[in-house]
Amino acid sequence: MTGYRAFNDMNSFWMEHPGVDDDVVISSRVRLARNSPDFPFSETITVQEERKLLDRVAAIPNRKEENGFEDFDFIDLSLVPVEEKQVLVEKHQISPALAMAQGATGLMINAAETMAVMVNEEDHLRIQSIFPGLSVKDCWEKASAADDMIAHYIPAAFDSRWGYLTSCPTNAGTGMRASAMLHLPAIAMTGQVRRFLGNLPKYGFTSRGLYGEGSVCKGNLFQISNQITMGVSEEEIISQLTDIVESIVNREREMRDILMERERLQLEDRVIRAEALLTHAKLLSVDESFELLSDLRLGIDLGILKQYDPKIFNTLMIQSQVPVLEKFARETRHTQEKMTLLEQNQQRADLIRKKLIGGARS
Amino acid sequence: MTGYRAFNDMNSFWMEHPGVDDDVVISSRVRLARNSPDFPFSETITVQEERKLLDRVAAIPNRKEENGFEDFDFIDLSLVPVEEKQVLVEKHQISPALAMAQGATGLMINAAETMAVMVNEEDHLRIQSIFPGLSVKDCWEKASAADDMIAHYIPAAFDSRWGYLTSCPTNAGTGMRASAMLHLPAIAMTGQVRRFLGNLPKYGFTSRGLYGEGSVCKGNLFQISNQITMGVSEEEIISQLTDIVESIVNREREMRDILMERERLQLEDRVIRAEALLTHAKLLSVDESFELLSDLRLGIDLGILKQYDPKIFNTLMIQSQVPVLEKFARETRHTQEKMTLLEQNQQRADLIRKKLIGGARS
Repeated sequence: MTGYRAFNDMNSFWMEHPGVDDDVVISSRVRLARNSPDFPFSETITVQEERKLLDRVAAIPNRKEENGFEDFDFIDLSLVPVEEKQVLVEKHQISPALAMAQGATGLMINAAETMAVMVNEEDHLRIQSIFPGLSVKDCWEKASAADDMIAHYIPAAFDSRWGYLTSCPTNAGTGMRASAMLHLPAIAMTGQVRRFLGNLPKYGFTSRGLYGEGSVCKGNLFQISNQITMGVSEEEIISQLTDIVESIVNREREMRDILMERERLQLEDRVIRAEALLTHAKLLSVDESFELLSDLRLGIDLGILKQYDPKIFNTLMIQSQVPVLEKFARETRHTQEKMTLLEQNQQRADLIRKKLIGGARS
Repeated sequence: MTGYRAFNDMNSFWMEHPGVDDDVVISSRVRLARNSPDFPFSETITVQEERKLLDRVAAIPNRKEENGFEDFDFIDLSLVPVEEKQVLVEKHQISPALAMAQGATGLMINAAETMAVMVNEEDHLRIQSIFPGLSVKDCWEKASAADDMIAHYIPAAFDSRWGYLTSCPTNAGTGMRASAMLHLPAIAMTGQVRRFLGNLPKYGFTSRGLYGEGSVCKGNLFQISNQITMGVSEEEIISQLTDIVESIVNREREMRDILMERERLQLEDRVIRAEALLTHAKLLSVDESFELLSDLRLGIDLGILKQYDPKIFNTLMIQSQVPVLEKFARETRHTQEKMTLLEQNQQRADLIRKKLIGGARS
């Protein structure tokens, strides 16, 4: 429905480009919670006030020298149908909460989709940055630059004692959440998730599923992020998270080596079966496709499957989600009717089959 | 180890040839229990007496006019290692009990393996005949001719009131068990096994799994046979069994039509997945291969898979059994070592994959 790139190109920079340790780390992300002292915080803000804030963000000029010549779109999300907004959720560019919000909401996003600012989510502004692989430092630098740029136009509420003030006090201080999305099939297969991730809270970090807080791990994807935002500097959090992720990456690689040494045949069988089902099945549920794509990706990383680009995993994980499938169906069938579960499963199987067969290197 | 065809060619006539209703009925079989009045019955017979009986069977001349010019092998099973005898069990030519028996046991079998006589099983002689499809009448005629022929040399114990006398009184009378092996995937998938097979005992018939009495249904294969051997003639049993099987065949076909009409996509998905796994997996357990081969066969019968001969199902069901795999391993690896479970699963997957890829019509 919209001409914006974010709705029409299903790939973001982080999905398509190589990164450090990207055999295990899919992507890194930093988000900064910021609020303007000129408006009430989200609990009491009116829609009219939200609109005023939105207009101020929309007025931030593109391509100015002091803005780093960044070329970004401003999207008024209150004009976008909810099903289109779900596409941005699946691309990890907006939160599920923002997609469902009733007020005046918006998104400022650059062309590569490495930087995005959600407007009127839980905080007035949520500045975020995503890069491929283990790159929390890059994310922090990008988000920090965006933060400085925006502060020219909308200064942030800051207290010398409490730091950045946020809607929820657990975010106050740095207002930062830094995270990395890890693919840990070997740790999961050997039943060692608790062993290797269970003690993260001791260090002020936590692990969750693909969709953030409260979500279950799917496709062996685990998001590791900081829990503490006060009493530590951004640089300390970034450095600690990088160390923690590196140590988990090493554990995952060790487990992969052990599996390849001790259970090579079973592993090959598992990977080859996943490939056979993904390239043949007529119906695939979300959960099954996640599991099979995880096995496929492991097979690519272990060199069992040589004909695929590992990045096809990222693309298919995003594109086989219901909102994205629905979007393609609307565009190709010119209908607004919701798909049945059977139709979704069929579309998903068709899409994955075609992309894998078409995407295999010959 | 032996030069006999029965050990070296894994295919019998019933596996390779077409038959009536063979989209549902895999094979038919008739066996006649016979005993000689010259020897004690199996409970009290000595090994010396068993040997004498065996010698009399071994002396029945080949290719005589009165023997229907039949060309058969006589195999002294007491000279055959138990693992080789297991191969005959998998081919359904001897019973598991005969394979394990310690005494002087034997088998007379014709070249096409449509007729076989077990010697010193539960009865002195068990004359059996197998043909493809719904052919219990052909089986009865073949077994009856063999019975007449053998009676020239070894007359059977017969009582004008009790009929043929047998070791177990439940077999006395006709001494006949007639059966048909049915592949009923649609009845099984729609959960109607009990509905369509549950009332067989009312008519003096019963259903069992692939390996006869007490065995569990595997691969959706059900053996339907008569329970009653007294008070009814052979012809009546044959005619009733034929009618019953025909009615089950019609039910199975109706259920297949209904599934194709109402759940075509799910059915195609199931069949295509089975084919993908059978042609790609590196490891296959017996149980999984039975399930997948059943789905494959259904796909062939429904025209979803066009590139395979339906008879490949029979061949693969037999050849992927452990004793047959072990036999091939002994011959190709020249080792007497038993295979591990992992090796069995790998051998089975290799065999099925090669046969299916090699056996597909281009």
